[in-house]
Amino acid sequence: MNHILKDNNTSVSFFKNEVQKFVRDRNWTKFHTPKNLIQALSIEVSELSEIFLFKDISLDTINSDKELLENISDEISDIFIYLISLVNSINLDLTSAFIKKMEKNKDKYSVEEFNDGSYQKL
Amino acid sequence: MNHILKDNNTSVSFFKNEVQKFVRDRNWTKFHTPKNLIQALSIEVSELSEIFLFKDISLDTINSDKELLENISDEISDIFIYLISLVNSINLDLTSAFIKKMEKNKDKYSVEEFNDGSYQKL
Amino acid sequence: MNHILKDNNTSVSFFKNEVQKFVRDRNWTKFHTPKNLIQALSIEVSELSEIFLFKDISLDTINSDKELLENISDEISDIFIYLISLVNSINLDLTSAFIKKMEKNKDKYSVEEFNDGSYQKL
Amino acid sequence: MNHILKDNNTSVSFFKNEVQKFVRDRNWTKFHTPKNLIQALSIEVSELSEIFLFKDISLDTINSDKELLENISDEISDIFIYLISLVNSINLDLTSAFIKKMEKNKDKYSVEEFNDGSYQKL
Repeated sequence: MNHILKDNNTSVSFFKNEVQKFVRDRNWTKFHTPKNLIQALSIEVSELSEIFLFKDISLDTINSDKELLENISDEISDIFIYLISLVNSINLDLTSAFIKKMEKNKDKYSVEEFNDGSYQKL
Repeated sequence: MNHILKDNNTSVSFFKNEVQKFVRDRNWTKFHTPKNLIQALSIEVSELSEIFLFKDISLDTINSDKELLENISDEISDIFIYLISLVNSINLDLTSAFIKKMEKNKDKYSVEEFNDGSYQKL
Repeated sequence: MNHILKDNNTSVSFFKNEVQKFVRDRNWTKFHTPKNLIQALSIEVSELSEIFLFKDISLDTINSDKELLENISDEISDIFIYLISLVNSINLDLTSAFIKKMEKNKDKYSVEEFNDGSYQKL
Repeated sequence: MNHILKDNNTSVSFFKNEVQKFVRDRNWTKFHTPKNLIQALSIEVSELSEIFLFKDISLDTINSDKELLENISDEISDIFIYLISLVNSINLDLTSAFIKKMEKNKDKYSVEEFNDGSYQKL
């Protein structure tokens, strides 16, 4: 690559292709079934969760502790990798799925009703 | 928008902006701390997992059952939304984090060693 | 039963027998494999977690809100039921397993080292 | 103890007392809030789940592989320890909670309707 890839110039397809190639090169496609990938996702989320167990970690601490930030960044990436592999496994267009679900969320939690600090899970 | 957004023409920044606006418009930023978002992620992964509990669902079934596919697609989107909000909360460039972690994964699981069908978790 | 069963007069075997009978009566034994039960456990823990998402709930609130306490109590019970079914599925003596692991935990986290308020996960 | 503790002669109170003493001796009571313990439970379930990731492990394998069985037994025990600490933290009688929820489960999933191999999550 002759330019630096950042969030503002990198499409979802880039991640899908990278993960697909990584999985294929290792003959791991047969392991990457939706059910297995969901299990892997759950495990990765717990690894990220463990960093915060029995602790309150402020944003200042995260941003000033380089090793901590890298740990968090690595765990977020592993979650994202398995999520992208899941998207690949069922041949989903993540962008279309996201836009569709965001419309539902916007309808369910209207700005008029939910701008007062009350909260509901998606 | 005057064109259709798909994975091949949509950058990570689009999702970050959409989620940030959605959260801000509802005054939910104070709830979206890293620790809370990780908890929410874990819950959303379980909602997706529940679809597959005590069942083997083939790819053919997923692709031919419109309602099932929409349920799965919605749950994947909710996971992605919370993941993006987590990325926003610590001001991370997800693309850079992904590329860095993929390099580590490629080093840890070389194609030479892992192309025979054996498997290791990331 | 002609006496009231409480924690001080109820053995682990009671729970094992009750859960086994419940599962057998419904022909569910074939579903209750270790792997499936671990998945079910994870989902039940998330249902309990959801009660606490984006909220700080004090012990006073839990003890004074009857409906909340029953929800929590029900979710804890479902976790316990699946845990007992898992124990049944591999024919484990939970008491012996517990005693063995507690010995390891006591060695790993000696009172001398860990009585100052620092914390480590088991 | 001058007799061997097993599932058929050990009450829930034994585990509650053991865990309470373990936690108190290390001044960990302040960490063992319901919300923290639910997070810890989720993490421990994932550690157990990881043993089974991308694998089918038969009961024969579990019973013949001593190290594997001990790993599983240890992880089950850690889940049970955190569950008991959660029960302690809200001063719950687990036996009463279990009996109450089992009645609900029996009503919801009658033997007449659910003895044909169909399945529903609790």
